[in-house]
This record gives sequence, C-alpha cells and structure tokens, in this order.
Amino acid sequence: MKSMMRAIVKSEAAPGAVMQSVPIPRVTRGSVLVEILATAICGTDLHIYDWTEWAQARIHTPMVFGHEFCGRVVQIGEGVTGLNVGDLIAGETHIPCGECHQCRTGLQHVCQNMKILGVHTPGAFSEYAVVPQACAWRLPPGTDPHVGTVYEPFGVAAHATLIEDLAGKSVAVFGCGPIGLYAVGIARASGAGMVVASEVGKYRRDLAATIGATHVIDPRDRAADERIMELTHGCGVDVAIELSGNPAALRQALSSITRGGRLSIAGLPSRPVEINVVDDVIYKELRIYGITGRVMYDTWYRVANLIESGVVDPRPVSTHVFRPDDFLSAMDTARSGSAGKVLLSWR
Amino acid sequence: MKSMMRAIVKSEAAPGAVMQSVPIPRVTRGSVLVEILATAICGTDLHIYDWTEWAQARIHTPMVFGHEFCGRVVQIGEGVTGLNVGDLIAGETHIPCGECHQCRTGLQHVCQNMKILGVHTPGAFSEYAVVPQACAWRLPPGTDPHVGTVYEPFGVAAHATLIEDLAGKSVAVFGCGPIGLYAVGIARASGAGMVVASEVGKYRRDLAATIGATHVIDPRDRAADERIMELTHGCGVDVAIELSGNPAALRQALSSITRGGRLSIAGLPSRPVEINVVDDVIYKELRIYGITGRVMYDTWYRVANLIESGVVDPRPVSTHVFRPDDFLSAMDTARSGSAGKVLLSWR
Amino acid sequence: MKSMMRAIVKSEAAPGAVMQSVPIPRVTRGSVLVEILATAICGTDLHIYDWTEWAQARIHTPMVFGHEFCGRVVQIGEGVTGLNVGDLIAGETHIPCGECHQCRTGLQHVCQNMKILGVHTPGAFSEYAVVPQACAWRLPPGTDPHVGTVYEPFGVAAHATLIEDLAGKSVAVFGCGPIGLYAVGIARASGAGMVVASEVGKYRRDLAATIGATHVIDPRDRAADERIMELTHGCGVDVAIELSGNPAALRQALSSITRGGRLSIAGLPSRPVEINVVDDVIYKELRIYGITGRVMYDTWYRVANLIESGVVDPRPVSTHVFRPDDFLSAMDTARSGSAGKVLLSWR
Amino acid sequence: MKSMMRAIVKSEAAPGAVMQSVPIPRVTRGSVLVEILATAICGTDLHIYDWTEWAQARIHTPMVFGHEFCGRVVQIGEGVTGLNVGDLIAGETHIPCGECHQCRTGLQHVCQNMKILGVHTPGAFSEYAVVPQACAWRLPPGTDPHVGTVYEPFGVAAHATLIEDLAGKSVAVFGCGPIGLYAVGIARASGAGMVVASEVGKYRRDLAATIGATHVIDPRDRAADERIMELTHGCGVDVAIELSGNPAALRQALSSITRGGRLSIAGLPSRPVEINVVDDVIYKELRIYGITGRVMYDTWYRVANLIESGVVDPRPVSTHVFRPDDFLSAMDTARSGSAGKVLLSWR
Repeated sequence: MKSMMRAIVKSEAAPGAVMQSVPIPRVTRGSVLVEILATAICGTDLHIYDWTEWAQARIHTPMVFGHEFCGRVVQIGEGVTGLNVGDLIAGETHIPCGECHQCRTGLQHVCQNMKILGVHTPGAFSEYAVVPQACAWRLPPGTDPHVGTVYEPFGVAAHATLIEDLAGKSVAVFGCGPIGLYAVGIARASGAGMVVASEVGKYRRDLAATIGATHVIDPRDRAADERIMELTHGCGVDVAIELSGNPAALRQALSSITRGGRLSIAGLPSRPVEINVVDDVIYKELRIYGITGRVMYDTWYRVANLIESGVVDPRPVSTHVFRPDDFLSAMDTARSGSAGKVLLSWR
Repeated sequence: MKSMMRAIVKSEAAPGAVMQSVPIPRVTRGSVLVEILATAICGTDLHIYDWTEWAQARIHTPMVFGHEFCGRVVQIGEGVTGLNVGDLIAGETHIPCGECHQCRTGLQHVCQNMKILGVHTPGAFSEYAVVPQACAWRLPPGTDPHVGTVYEPFGVAAHATLIEDLAGKSVAVFGCGPIGLYAVGIARASGAGMVVASEVGKYRRDLAATIGATHVIDPRDRAADERIMELTHGCGVDVAIELSGNPAALRQALSSITRGGRLSIAGLPSRPVEINVVDDVIYKELRIYGITGRVMYDTWYRVANLIESGVVDPRPVSTHVFRPDDFLSAMDTARSGSAGKVLLSWR
Repeated sequence: MKSMMRAIVKSEAAPGAVMQSVPIPRVTRGSVLVEILATAICGTDLHIYDWTEWAQARIHTPMVFGHEFCGRVVQIGEGVTGLNVGDLIAGETHIPCGECHQCRTGLQHVCQNMKILGVHTPGAFSEYAVVPQACAWRLPPGTDPHVGTVYEPFGVAAHATLIEDLAGKSVAVFGCGPIGLYAVGIARASGAGMVVASEVGKYRRDLAATIGATHVIDPRDRAADERIMELTHGCGVDVAIELSGNPAALRQALSSITRGGRLSIAGLPSRPVEINVVDDVIYKELRIYGITGRVMYDTWYRVANLIESGVVDPRPVSTHVFRPDDFLSAMDTARSGSAGKVLLSWR
Repeated sequence: MKSMMRAIVKSEAAPGAVMQSVPIPRVTRGSVLVEILATAICGTDLHIYDWTEWAQARIHTPMVFGHEFCGRVVQIGEGVTGLNVGDLIAGETHIPCGECHQCRTGLQHVCQNMKILGVHTPGAFSEYAVVPQACAWRLPPGTDPHVGTVYEPFGVAAHATLIEDLAGKSVAVFGCGPIGLYAVGIARASGAGMVVASEVGKYRRDLAATIGATHVIDPRDRAADERIMELTHGCGVDVAIELSGNPAALRQALSSITRGGRLSIAGLPSRPVEINVVDDVIYKELRIYGITGRVMYDTWYRVANLIESGVVDPRPVSTHVFRPDDFLSAMDTARSGSAGKVLLSWR
C-alpha cells in the first residue's frame, strides 16, 4: 500500500484550504483505516473553510477536515470487534468518551467530553481516514456511496423530526438546507398530514416541494407564522422544526405552534436569541427539544430502515457531485443557496 | 318530516335480523338526529346477527343495531354546541359517562360506565339515528360517506398502531380483517420500514400487499414467528400488532418481537390465553398495550389528518357495497373472509 | 338566604381595592353557588391590586377578584352532575371552552378560549361565589379549608415538578415563593435525591429548608449555576424548575442542567428573555416544558393523593392568616417576601 | 498475595453446595480482581443450591456461584478505564455483549447474547472474584458493604417501580420478598399516595409496613383484588407491580388495576400463565412492562441517588447476616420466608 494520499487540508489560520499530499494515517487500537469513497460538505465545513469565529475558536491548523463520508474498511485496529476488511461504512461524527454520566445512560451523542471528527481530530476529505470503531456504521453491501455519505446529516434530520411521533399531525419545517429538506421528506413519509416548508431561497423551496412538502412558504413574502395560522384555521401546527439558525425564524416557529405542541431546535443561531417566554412557551405549554447529532445508535437504526426500505429517498437532495480536485467550486456551490447537498466523489 | 323509517332490527333473541319500519327516534337533550348515508359492518354486528354468547349477554331485543356510520345532522337537541344542521358526521361508538376518573383524565374511551352505541343504545343501521353530541365527529363538507363510515374502525387501527411511534422501525400485523388492513396501511405510511402481514386468508393477504405490506405471510404454511425471525435476521420485529383475536397468533406475536419491543393487542380472543410470561414478556422486557376503541378525540384528529391529507387511503379496504335491503347478503359477505370492509349505502 | 355579601372589590382603574357589600351572585346553568370558607392570595391578585400593566390590560372594573379558594356548595345550578349541596370544594381557576382542539384532546388547561376566574369572570374574595362545575374539585369531608384553598397553587407546582418523573434524580428549584416552596416539597417527596433551592430572600430560604430542600442557595452570594455545578461535581442537575420569573434565574437554570436534562418554566418574566440557544439548549439537548395551570384533572388527582395521603404537607408554607377585613395588611404581607402563602379566613 | 481462596462451590449436579479452597481467579483484559466484602443471597442462588430444573438447564458444575456482592478492587486488568485499585464497588450481574442491536440502543440489560455472572461465569460467593468492567459500579468511599451488596436487587425493584412515574398515584405490590420490600419502600418514597402490599407471609407483611406500605394484605384472607377494589372505592390502583412469580397473584394484579393503568411484571412464574386478555388487558387498556435486571446504567444512577441521599434506606430489609462458613444456615433462612434479605459477610 502507498504511504501518501491526497487530502483537503486547512493549512493556515486564514480563509481557504488546499489539496495536499499527506501521509496516510496509521490505524490505532480501537480504530479502522477507511478508504474514502464519497464525502459531503456540511455547513461546519464552510465555517472551517471561511475561517469564521466559530472555526477560529476550535480548529488547530494544519488539519484535514470533512466529516460526512462513506468508505470501505481496509485495515482493522487491535481490539476492534464487529467490523471486517471490505465492510462498507458510513461515518458517525461524534466521538464520545464512553465514561461520563451521559455516555453511560444512552446519551453518548451529548457526551461531556465529546470530540468531533474533522474538528478536534483529523477528518475525511482525503483518500483515507482513521475512524474510531464507534464512528463506523456498517452499510449493506452494494450501498451507493453517494447515499452512504449522507446518512450522517440525514440522521440529524431524523433525530430532530422523530423525537416525538408525528403521524396524523401537522408539521412546519423552518429552513430548507439539506437537513431541512431531509426533515421535510421524513415528516411526510412518517405520516404527517400537513408539511409546511418555510425557506427564503427559491431553489430550495422547489426541492422541498419535490421531497414531500404539502405547502411551501417564502417568509419574505409574508411572515411564516401568519401564513401557518391561516393554513391551520388559527390553530397552529402540532410540530415545528427549526433548522435555519435564524433568530427570526425561531421566533416564527414558536408562534406557529398550537398550544401544547412541540418544537425541535437544531439550527444554530450565531448569537443569543430573545424569546417571548410567557406567550410563546409558558401560556402555550410548548415542549422544546434541543437537538444535536444523532442518538448513538438508535437514530442510525432508524435511518437505515428509512433509507434502505425505501421509505425516504435522500437522493433528490444531493444536487451536485464534484471531483475532489474541484473542491473550491464545490465549496462555492454549497455556500450559494442554489444547491441541496453537495458531494465529493473520491473514486 | 315523516315519522317512520326503515331499520335493520334484531327483533328476537335468536340468530338473524329483519328490515322493519320503526318510528324515527326523537332527538334528546345533548343529542342530534342524523340522517344516515352509509354504514359499515363490524365483527360486533356479526356477533349480534349470529346471536353468539357475547351478544346474548349484552343485547336486549328488539333493537336497531349497527354502529359504524356516516350521516348528516338534520335536527339539533337542546344544549348541543358546535354542531349545525347540515353537518356531515362520522360516528364515534363509545358513549362515556363524563364523570368517572377515566373520563376526567383524558381516558373517556375506557370510561368505567361506558355505553356502546348499537349495543347498549339503539344503533345506526337505519334511515335515521339519534346520536349523543360526544359521538358526532364533524367531517369536511363533501366527504364521501363511504369514507366517512370507516373512520371509526380506521380509528381502532390508528390507535393500536400509533400508540408508540414506528417511523424507521419494523412492524408485524397479525390478522388482516379490515382493522388489520388499516393497520398495515397506517404503519407503512407512518414510516415503518418493514411491514409484515400475517393472515390465513388469501383474499385478505392480497389486500394487505395492496395497502402497504412489504411482506405477506400465511401462518399455516409456516409459523409466523419463525418466518419473522428469518426476515429480521434473528432479531425480531420492533413492533407487533395483534388484531386476529386468535390465541396462537397472540403467542406468535409475542415471540416475534425483539427484546425491548412493543406489542399492541386489540383482537379479542374468545377465552383466556396461556402466555409464556417469563420468556416472552419478562426476559424480553416487552411493553404490551391493551387497545380498545379510539382516544377521544386525539385519535380522531389523527385519523382526520391521515385520511384527509391523503397519507392513507382507506378505500381499497372497502371491497363491497350493498343496499340495505340486501343486508343478508352483506352479512354473509362480511363473514366469508373473502372481503375487506362491507358497506351498506342508505341513500 | 340573605341577598347581599361582603366582597373585596377592585372598584376603580387605579391601585387598591375596597371591601364592599355587593349582591350575592345568582347560580347559573352548569354552575354552583359556593359559600367561601378560605381564600389565598396569588401573585396575580397583587398585580390586580397594584394595577400593573398586566392588570390594566385584562381587568374590567368594578370586579370581585381572587381565585384561590375553598368553599361549600350551597346551591346547584341546572344541568350540574356529580356535585351536591354540602360538598366541600377547592377551586380550579381555569374555565375552558370545552370545544377547541385542546379541550377535546385532554389539554383543557391550555384552551384556546380560556377564561380565568377572578380575571375574566367574578372571583372569590367574597362570602359567596358562583363557580362553573368544571372549576369545582370535591374535597374529602372534613378537609381543613386552609388546606383546601392551596390545592390550586400546589397544583401548579405539582404539574411543573412532575411533568417528568424525578425519583432518584437531582433537582434545582429557582424561586421560592409559595409555588417554588411546594415544588421543593413535592420534588423531595417524589424521590429526588438532591433538591437545591435558589432564592434571594432569607425568610423563604428557611422555609425551603423546612419543606425539603437538601441544599439552599442565595444567588446573590454566588451565581446559582456555579454553585450547582460544584454540588454536582461539574455534571449539573437532572432537572431545573424555574418559578421566579427572573430572566437571570432562567438563564442560570438553563446553565445548571446536565446534558440531556429537563427544564420546567412556570415563572412569568415581565419581558422577552435572551437565551443562549446554542450552548444551553441545542448542544445540551435540553427538554424544556412551558407550564401553566394544572392538567384538568390529572394534576388534581395527583394533588389530592399527595396531600390527602400525607406525602407532602403544604401547611408549613401557609405562614399567615388574616381576616378579610384586614386584607390590606394581607396584601402587604404577601408582597413583602417575608411570607409564604398568605390566607384569608372567611368564616 | 496468596493463590488460594475460600469459595462456596456448586460442586456436583445435585442439591447442595460446599465451601472449598480454590485458586484465586486471574484478572483478564477488561476485568478487575475484586476482594469480596459482602454478598447477598438471591432466589437464583436458591435455585442453584436446590438444583431445580431451572438450574439444571443452565449451570455447569463445578462452579462458584453468587452474584450480589460488594467488594474492593485489588487489581486492574489491561484496557480498564475509570476504575482504580482501592475502589469500592457494587456488582452488576449482567454481562452484555456490547454489539447487538439492544446493546447499541441503550438496552444492554436485554442483550441478545447476555451472560449472567454466577450463572454462566464464575460468581462471587468467594474471597475474590474477577469482574468485567461493565459489572463494576463504583460506590462512594465509606459505603457500608452490607448496603453495597444490595444495590443489585434494589435496582430490580427500582427499575420495576419507576419505569413510569408514580408520584401522586396508588400502587399495589404483589409479593414481599426482598425485591418486593424494596419496591414498597421506593414507591412510597417516590410519592405514591397509597401503597398496598400483598403477601402471604406475616414476617414479610410486617417488614412491608415498616418500609412504607400504607396498607398490608394477606391474599389468603381474601382475594387481593377484591380488597384493593374496596380500598380504591371500586376504581382500582393506578399501578401494580408483580414480584411474587405466582400465577394467581399475577391475575389478581391484573384485575386490581384501574382502566388505563400500568403493570410491571418481574416475578418469574414457573410455567405459562392463563390470562383473561379481553377483560384484564384490552378493555382496560393496560400498559404492561416485562422487567428484568437493571437498565445499564440509568437504573444504577437512580439507585445511587435514592440510597445515598437517604430517600430510601434499604437496611431494614436485610434481616440476617451470616459468616460464609454458616452458608447452609443462611440458605435455609433465605428459603424460610421468615427473612428479608440474607447477607454473607466475608471480612
């Protein structure tokens, strides 16, 4: 086996990234070496690429980044069980410590000592990556790597959407980036009667309609909550899912929900948000769920069932595929808003 | 308005029933008079018709029976609110007392003093019926009465199926009479990946495949639990729903479920059932839900959303429609096993 | 029976209230006439008395106010069932419409058309009051009216505290007015291991220790969240209950909770609150419950069990009893912070 | 360190056991060597001792048995994290595989490939034992080993009792062996208003009253369900917990529960049980939970909080302590029914 590989490297503490030749990492105890087949670009990757405050506070350069991936196991570290050379895997991004209160009570995904692959440890925008056993989810043989690489963001959507059931209920999704689009698809395929998608970009509104929204709203035309109240005859939706990270959208989500309803928040606002706690939370008796990552591994089992049995097809959301050499264009496309999920195909 | 109407009457304490001319009932305080448009035949009606032990213990002849119906409000009793002449309604069968512990804590459907329309009070196989306000569920104008009349049995299926969520899970339904068929449809449309239908009758197995089963089993070919274990690679299904009332099916349901899984039981066995509590309940940590009727009115809202937004179409299950004059043939057809839901069309 | 009664009346749109002689109200259909035995002063009553913005927006003078009461049924209106002359009752404050989505799905306490007794309709600071059947909770014969009158605020505490279970968990209560004090007592008596009470007033901190707090904090000495992190070895509490209405306390509550933990918010802040949604809600995957009133009647059954079986004794919280003629002193005492619950004894 | 130790050995495939000198086991990767301080006798140990059918089907002689223990870590195996020499530990009995669906979704305690310490692997009735890391629960320094050794059975009671909350509810416990007694104590300390204990033995009924039962029943005097219906004014209890393993008790438990109530079953009947599914499960809409072992480690955290904060004191249940040399008397005492938990003190 060769010793060097191509990788997209955040080489300096400044905007940008470069394709470089770097050593193939060595497999360690409890990890596997994975040949990367496909990767996808997450909003986090754009933060790293653009060198935002968020990234400056977390990333130590130089580092290979990227954390949504699908690959094939090529080497097994000592102590690894349940994985074999040749296995196709999707990547979980969260690396839990395994010992804190949360890890010992089924909440590894909110581990007190969490590390993030591609943020705190080397990532997967590269020909090979070393992946802790806990982050390797086995896929059925023959899975399309372009599908396998989106299990991870699809899982965020599944966790946010399905944390309470929604069959026979009405749902509004705020923000239709890739995770929002998956949420729309999952909601409708899980029995939601009305699925309202609120999104400023026309490209993504059209995708939302394709993947299952029963109603599509441009919140710049008219406040989304007003429109939703009208659609629900003044009652409000049973469930809102906030995936935009926009404070105004979060407030509209709150005021769109019926009394006794539910809100999932997974979109990350860039600063604290002012909330009308009395009218929008207390008097309405909302249940609000903060959502991050995927339950390990309950969410993964559900994602596997949803995708592999054909309940939800995530492929329409993957609108663009680039070669790794064209990652600059891929980054631009992902940032443009006129895209769903943007993939990099490594083989 | 005329004073007499045609009605299917259980006239004597013996098998059979007759079409008779009887007085149109008078509306009472808290009730409405409904012009019946369509009715459907339930297993309970066959018990009454066949004069089984179950019926002998409950029914006082002569009585109009039938409790699955759709009609139009033609007269409003004193004290009724929220209903108007001309409203199209589906019928809830349970008449709760409104005052017991259960009625006061959201469990009216298991009221301690429950009366059943068409069992303890006059039913709806007739041109007109008096219906307590609590049993009148408003339908959207223009609803097909053939759809409206199955909201009630569809609701049993929805309650049994959705008592815990099942998106991204595997489900097995035991018994594919009309309620089982609805359960199959609801499960698949609510995100279940695998939906196994186990049913002895070929006619109904074919209907199960039509409405959404991913796998169809004849338990006489081979024990359903064995087959399900094979389909799930030895793990078992996450959820089983027992709707056959057959003790052997109940035991197969129990042994088909994975450890930590869920069982809903709504099928009524005719006698006590011997259960392997240690292996099938305790060591597996099953959660078992007894299911009867519909939650008033949470289930109704969900049913309305599921049907009216097109998530599940109940119409393929309604395989036969008869004129009331042909109710003898209708009863025979409903009993035959070579039918889904059998309807009577009154207008 | 006499025709006039004494009542504490909000006579003018200005601070204050007066004791007046007013006609005894007439019982109406669906209501009962109650002879008032004891009442208690709520924060809402102070708003009305002080004529705050909140009150100005809601109250039409002249009006009898007051809504925490215990009394005896002396007359039964038409159509009332399940109540008899002589019954001792505690008062539920919420008057639901009975017909909206919420009322029909077990959420009467967040009815879309809610009226509040003593705010939208005449109250109970008077010798007699007319009470809708839905607001009359029967007490066991012989109940001390001084206990019966606090079922209502005790119920808010029970609802906020018990919305998820807390046996074997750690709990922090922010704000130890009467409802906070009840919450402390309920939490400890429901199996919470650690019960931290955070309160600025020494009088109330002492009451908190009496009723069950295992740790008492003055948040002015040191930020409550810091102290709680220390007490929990950096892990945070499983459950926080915010009852102060203070924005800073709400933020401390959020940051005191462990990842995956739960917050109940029932304290009403006077303006929107800025919340660090990313760190305190999303990354921690909190579950947040807005809490208002009492579930009708699930909370009432639980309150009855807790108090009547001696699980929690609410009496130590009732620190002062006044005669109605001394209501000015009672109001001053309730407002002072050096009191628990302040009662008015009418007989 | 010495190489031999004393141990209670099931030496032959026949009733009985013997104290023998056997080699001290070697610590292995992922395990720790524990010096045993105290052990307790479980019903399982009596099965092994008495060589019942259950034991004959599972135990390979010769084997050290016993699985309820408290000890001190004296040697750490390779790869063990989070444990140190000198740590005091309580023993978890379940050894999950870590790789099956259940292990990966927070249900290790119902692992598909479960091994039981003291049944499938050498036990702890000995001076030393090798314990997998997963089975070592750290206790606070200074914990009384006589308390530490009952965390495991106390955990079964906590899991069975607290699987749904019961503050402000009524509870009936069937069977007051040690686990039943803990269940009574936990129920009352977790806010249950009424706690009915049903038990045939007077010695244990008296213990039940001591630890928190509000009502104690001898089911031989009069059927427990009849008595419970009387105590609850015909309504039934909200919660029943079956810990006797007696089929008649299980049926009485079912018929004691109110409509919409909950049953936990952890007592192991020796053969299948005939259940009136229609009247006792379906028409009542019961929720039934099979219960085995302890959730790893949610139950352990709760047990630690309950015991260490003084919410429940398990010590009154430990009625007898023997020296290991007197284990024959200890076994007789445990089997007699005139005992609570029987301990063996090893130091």
